[in-house]
Amino acid sequence: MSDWLERSYMARLGVAKGREGRRHQLDRERQGAFHYVYGPYAEPVLTIDPGDIVVAETEDAFGGAIRSERDLPSAVLNMPFVNPQCGPIRIEGAKKGDVVAVRILDIEPRGPQPVGTTALIPEFGGLVATPVTAMLNRPLPERVKKMAVTREGVVFNERITLPYEPFIGTLGVSPEIEAISSLTPDYYGGNMDLPDMGPGAIAYFPVQHEGAFLYVGDCHGTQGDGELCGVAVEIPSTTTLHVDLIKGWPIHWPRLENERFIMSIGSARPMEDAARIAYRDLVRWLVADYGFEESEAYFLLTQAGRVRLGNMVDPKYTLGASLLKAYLE
Amino acid sequence: MSDWLERSYMARLGVAKGREGRRHQLDRERQGAFHYVYGPYAEPVLTIDPGDIVVAETEDAFGGAIRSERDLPSAVLNMPFVNPQCGPIRIEGAKKGDVVAVRILDIEPRGPQPVGTTALIPEFGGLVATPVTAMLNRPLPERVKKMAVTREGVVFNERITLPYEPFIGTLGVSPEIEAISSLTPDYYGGNMDLPDMGPGAIAYFPVQHEGAFLYVGDCHGTQGDGELCGVAVEIPSTTTLHVDLIKGWPIHWPRLENERFIMSIGSARPMEDAARIAYRDLVRWLVADYGFEESEAYFLLTQAGRVRLGNMVDPKYTLGASLLKAYLE
Amino acid sequence: MSDWLERSYMARLGVAKGREGRRHQLDRERQGAFHYVYGPYAEPVLTIDPGDIVVAETEDAFGGAIRSERDLPSAVLNMPFVNPQCGPIRIEGAKKGDVVAVRILDIEPRGPQPVGTTALIPEFGGLVATPVTAMLNRPLPERVKKMAVTREGVVFNERITLPYEPFIGTLGVSPEIEAISSLTPDYYGGNMDLPDMGPGAIAYFPVQHEGAFLYVGDCHGTQGDGELCGVAVEIPSTTTLHVDLIKGWPIHWPRLENERFIMSIGSARPMEDAARIAYRDLVRWLVADYGFEESEAYFLLTQAGRVRLGNMVDPKYTLGASLLKAYLE
Amino acid sequence: MSDWLERSYMARLGVAKGREGRRHQLDRERQGAFHYVYGPYAEPVLTIDPGDIVVAETEDAFGGAIRSERDLPSAVLNMPFVNPQCGPIRIEGAKKGDVVAVRILDIEPRGPQPVGTTALIPEFGGLVATPVTAMLNRPLPERVKKMAVTREGVVFNERITLPYEPFIGTLGVSPEIEAISSLTPDYYGGNMDLPDMGPGAIAYFPVQHEGAFLYVGDCHGTQGDGELCGVAVEIPSTTTLHVDLIKGWPIHWPRLENERFIMSIGSARPMEDAARIAYRDLVRWLVADYGFEESEAYFLLTQAGRVRLGNMVDPKYTLGASLLKAYLE
Repeated sequence: MSDWLERSYMARLGVAKGREGRRHQLDRERQGAFHYVYGPYAEPVLTIDPGDIVVAETEDAFGGAIRSERDLPSAVLNMPFVNPQCGPIRIEGAKKGDVVAVRILDIEPRGPQPVGTTALIPEFGGLVATPVTAMLNRPLPERVKKMAVTREGVVFNERITLPYEPFIGTLGVSPEIEAISSLTPDYYGGNMDLPDMGPGAIAYFPVQHEGAFLYVGDCHGTQGDGELCGVAVEIPSTTTLHVDLIKGWPIHWPRLENERFIMSIGSARPMEDAARIAYRDLVRWLVADYGFEESEAYFLLTQAGRVRLGNMVDPKYTLGASLLKAYLE
Repeated sequence: MSDWLERSYMARLGVAKGREGRRHQLDRERQGAFHYVYGPYAEPVLTIDPGDIVVAETEDAFGGAIRSERDLPSAVLNMPFVNPQCGPIRIEGAKKGDVVAVRILDIEPRGPQPVGTTALIPEFGGLVATPVTAMLNRPLPERVKKMAVTREGVVFNERITLPYEPFIGTLGVSPEIEAISSLTPDYYGGNMDLPDMGPGAIAYFPVQHEGAFLYVGDCHGTQGDGELCGVAVEIPSTTTLHVDLIKGWPIHWPRLENERFIMSIGSARPMEDAARIAYRDLVRWLVADYGFEESEAYFLLTQAGRVRLGNMVDPKYTLGASLLKAYLE
Repeated sequence: MSDWLERSYMARLGVAKGREGRRHQLDRERQGAFHYVYGPYAEPVLTIDPGDIVVAETEDAFGGAIRSERDLPSAVLNMPFVNPQCGPIRIEGAKKGDVVAVRILDIEPRGPQPVGTTALIPEFGGLVATPVTAMLNRPLPERVKKMAVTREGVVFNERITLPYEPFIGTLGVSPEIEAISSLTPDYYGGNMDLPDMGPGAIAYFPVQHEGAFLYVGDCHGTQGDGELCGVAVEIPSTTTLHVDLIKGWPIHWPRLENERFIMSIGSARPMEDAARIAYRDLVRWLVADYGFEESEAYFLLTQAGRVRLGNMVDPKYTLGASLLKAYLE
Repeated sequence: MSDWLERSYMARLGVAKGREGRRHQLDRERQGAFHYVYGPYAEPVLTIDPGDIVVAETEDAFGGAIRSERDLPSAVLNMPFVNPQCGPIRIEGAKKGDVVAVRILDIEPRGPQPVGTTALIPEFGGLVATPVTAMLNRPLPERVKKMAVTREGVVFNERITLPYEPFIGTLGVSPEIEAISSLTPDYYGGNMDLPDMGPGAIAYFPVQHEGAFLYVGDCHGTQGDGELCGVAVEIPSTTTLHVDLIKGWPIHWPRLENERFIMSIGSARPMEDAARIAYRDLVRWLVADYGFEESEAYFLLTQAGRVRLGNMVDPKYTLGASLLKAYLE
């Protein structure tokens, strides 16, 4: 285990202390029907112990329905059955008030090339009128773009190949009594579309329901800040997660750490509320765990905080506020 | 049937043509456990035919837990188990694409006086920082205020008695696959907290799920625009609804009519999006049903539209946009 | 003087005690060039004493440039020279910390019929993408609609005549050092587009600059809540104002009273901030002038406050929060 | 001239072709009174030719009034006279429709140590209620923190020294007829508080007024994304700018380039509108200058766009959207 992993919250506070337990294959057969809500009403497809590893075969956000650039979203998608999720995975011993730690080990594209899909979907996206930011302007024309995606890169077009910087678009635990669309991000995780949620990161989600009920899906080969048109480089994947359980850590929103920084994640509309949630949580984190007086934490983030815009297209916008660990030692 | 009722959408398009069918008592015993989400996962407590009447005994938003001004919300409430709902009521024949029409016949306060409750709840309300509009300011002190509520009025204090203008705070149908907190309003209805939703109004909700699954709760003795502190004059009630079903009316958000106006209802954040939703729907309504050309409808609402702010405190803000029927004849 | 006028803030606190002084004609010749900003850098066209009456000949928001339905805004308007204002009117003795009281006595349409104009202007309006709510959708087609406007009504079309309910769209005082477009509303008044600002109302504006520098323009023959497409029934007018000065009333946003209610007016984006401003000011008004304890005022507005949406189209949205005077006696 | 500078818009399109002309000292004596608005009503303190260099002695945002941690803002500041600006600098030949290019050569702290100031100001900041996001919660206690700032770093406290990453908080040109507070950012620049506006960057501002009227002030020793508490590491500075003029470049919002990326800058509330402005401008930039079809530009930014949050505290929030130049070659 590398140095920073040993000092991570997962390793220090987790029931399994960062050690790797059994390995579970969550392939399509094991999964059976996919889920389109984050909720407590589905039967777990898997029960794991803290420390276990899950290898999940995720579908892309369209459930594979867009096979070529001629498959228009309005023709092949059947709302609200989009953004299929693997899970729920029951974590033994998880109770409300605990935290699930998810270390993202790997994300590998899965399926025939070109395996990546982006699209202009009518009334969806950050620069168009939508059913909620409702306007009388006519929608843009639909369009699908397929891209080859390998570990070597995302072939955007003949001139441009983007680096392969994969992450999980939708990840989190079940609300206590709600079942929320997998298109929505919120305090329990969900469709955050935050590029930091990739290999090398550990994400933390506050458990709301007995067993936690972890869901995962919607991997992206890469994505810009904000996921501007609403559709990243959507890929089916084989995603490997190391899952642990932290008992009694009273967090209220998702958090994340990697080798370089700690991050609080907020999701809300308008966007400033997502920023307020994230930064307030980070202030409180500095106070609770790093000995800062509140105004000193507020000052430090004013001078050294960093913001990553996850999405500006989903039912709630997502934004992560972070601070370098270098300032916390 | 009065003139306007005969010409209402309910009477013209409803399966029961505005005629009253059987009467169902939905008392506490029949209800059993209350529900705290609008969703398809609960068993119906009642199945009715279009045209039937339901007499529901609703709890107040606190489930009766605040019995005196000494019962502080933070001590007696158990989140997320607030805003208990009666139902779901299954409506025979209702399918996705249909519309449930709910004529509100009567709302009567129920229980020992002073039966009305308002309160300052920490981190909740329109003029305070909340978990979402997250700030570092300290919360206001908690406070509970009880008020006598009868058909004669709401006794606010010794000097001020407000008129009894009751309405249903939370009313609507189930989402298709989501189960959403009864604190939230959205396209299916829910916690709109819109004062027009009272006796004399007919509300229309787009069916998402087979059987519609109607829920009702959270009656208010009166309320100002916006429900400013987040808690109206909350009362338990005996509420009488006349329910019909309109087949194949493609509406996307709740609508309402009464003797004087037609109204479209939007719920969203930020508040301007709620206004956009409501007004765009009203434009489209004028075009679809009243022969207006789109720009002419847009012009007419610019000069004669009216806006009612329901709530500025719930997870989504609610706003109704209306036009007098006088301009539509 | 009628009863309510005698008890108005203007009559009780004004330097002129509500008495009418000299009468000033502010016709086009006297005005000379119109102004397109609210600011302290223009020379006063008139200096008046508290109590004086001003009869101003206002232009419509287009400076009369749209003479027929064939005059498209994009062809005849020259941004930023729209919404021409009469003034500034210097009020003798006015200093920062004082308040200008403006009683609106009359608004009369002026000019050849059809004298009213509304229009769809590209990238402007409440239901279209704009330069600020920036989108990639194409604009709607431009369109102009002219309407006859008399004291008898606004002839919207052959079937619909709307009541003549005139008001002043843009009214207020100069900021201290800023000069702000007459298209914008803010703490000093400006382009509020609030229908309550009509005959029978007294408006109060916090003085920021020596002499106050009152501006007025942009009268409307009628308007719906929100001024949906961005252009009300724009008319040139002869507008009669009774102006007084209240020394040392520390208000921070425009206020208004009429026979029935008192109102606080907020302008901001997003819209909920306009609502917060208005309602917070009204809470503080109840505490300062009517003996309410803060939480009691907050409760009362929760149950009895009313909201009027002025505009949802200008650089800041405007919203008035009001309470019936009946509850304040 | 380095490679990227030679290929910059400034060098390719500027009147001076990126060559350096005369050098002007804009010291305190030359400046005389500072300005607190961006507007056309002040007399230029300097007239320069395209290509000239200006060395400006800027004050800190408090005009130096906070000399020690005992100088509380509410006692020593005199609103609205904060954020003093150097200028206006008249640029020979600049006309509406042109663009001013400002290459930032250097920012040096100026004055006795500890020269950096941050503060908690009542009702100001990203995590507190403000006069606009108006609430009833009580303000946080005031506090001032002074920090030594040199080219070696910003001494936050005994444990933490932040890198010296200086930038200009407030920079831009005059509006055409408005005079806007130097606290506000908008389409003409102003108080953007965007950390990318530092040495190594070239900023572009659309000229609105004859002579452009360039203003500059409000340098920061460093700042986190969003300027969370509202006050960065405020420093007086000696700032060196290389100014050129681009004739007839029809841009509508500030743009920026450095060695690595091009950036469009939007300022608005709510924050998503700032993001929409910035990203739409960047889409249009790619279409106009780099041969992209619109939907292809939209796709590329979806996958590779980056967002920098400037401020979440000023009257409008500022956000920059950027794309690596590597993808544009």
